[in-house]
Amino acid sequence: MLMQPQPETEEEQVLAANLAFYEALRSLDIARMEAVWLQEDWVRCLHPGWELLLGWEEVQRRWAAIFHSTRQILISISRPVVQIVGDTAWVSCLEDVTTAQEDGISAAVIEATNIFVRHRGKWLMVHRHTTPLPGKTSSPQHRILQ
Amino acid sequence: MLMQPQPETEEEQVLAANLAFYEALRSLDIARMEAVWLQEDWVRCLHPGWELLLGWEEVQRRWAAIFHSTRQILISISRPVVQIVGDTAWVSCLEDVTTAQEDGISAAVIEATNIFVRHRGKWLMVHRHTTPLPGKTSSPQHRILQ
Repeated sequence: MLMQPQPETEEEQVLAANLAFYEALRSLDIARMEAVWLQEDWVRCLHPGWELLLGWEEVQRRWAAIFHSTRQILISISRPVVQIVGDTAWVSCLEDVTTAQEDGISAAVIEATNIFVRHRGKWLMVHRHTTPLPGKTSSPQHRILQ
Repeated sequence: MLMQPQPETEEEQVLAANLAFYEALRSLDIARMEAVWLQEDWVRCLHPGWELLLGWEEVQRRWAAIFHSTRQILISISRPVVQIVGDTAWVSCLEDVTTAQEDGISAAVIEATNIFVRHRGKWLMVHRHTTPLPGKTSSPQHRILQ
């Protein structure tokens, strides 16, 4: 049995936490999404096209609603850039997202800032800010690769 | 002579740093903008409608270009929310912005995440992410109040 290599540097740990978030998003499994967030009343999330959500209760409820109304999310990320200061880290990355919802399919390229804090040795998401980039949509070729 | 009260709590210090950024923006004075940023190659800035800028050199150059082409910026902020973890802090706030540029006037409501780090005792901006909120523009009444 092949063992997954353990992330070693702090930067690798943060990138792994960032990846775990996107895997939770792809899975549409609310339990997986809950596992990657710090569940505090001060966490925040700005979904594309929405207003800022304040606190884990609002953030969790919206993820549950999104997962409920979404049949499939195809998402790939590129250009991840990490900065770590103490127990806080933030990642900038580009998301290439195609979403199949009850009312149709949408595609977008999104610039994201994801902030993590190290809590009991584990990096957890505490803030997410997304911006759809105007005039950019994922290419059909890219979507096929997903 | 009236003395300005010194910010006391960490949260007040961060809010003062956030305010200093907006005062620099209003002033259109590049020296003031330079004074509120940490000038490192890992700072980042996402202006509305642009791609992410990486590193102080790019960030500074774009601010200089924006200030050069802008006659006036009217900006007020609301709903600032602060979180501090060690020497890192991030502020979410809504910006109500009216910009007079060479080619006309534009108005927008923008959701911002501003990240600061404490460097030699001073909170400096290291990351800025902005998202224009769709369907929201500043009201004429609001603009008059600026």
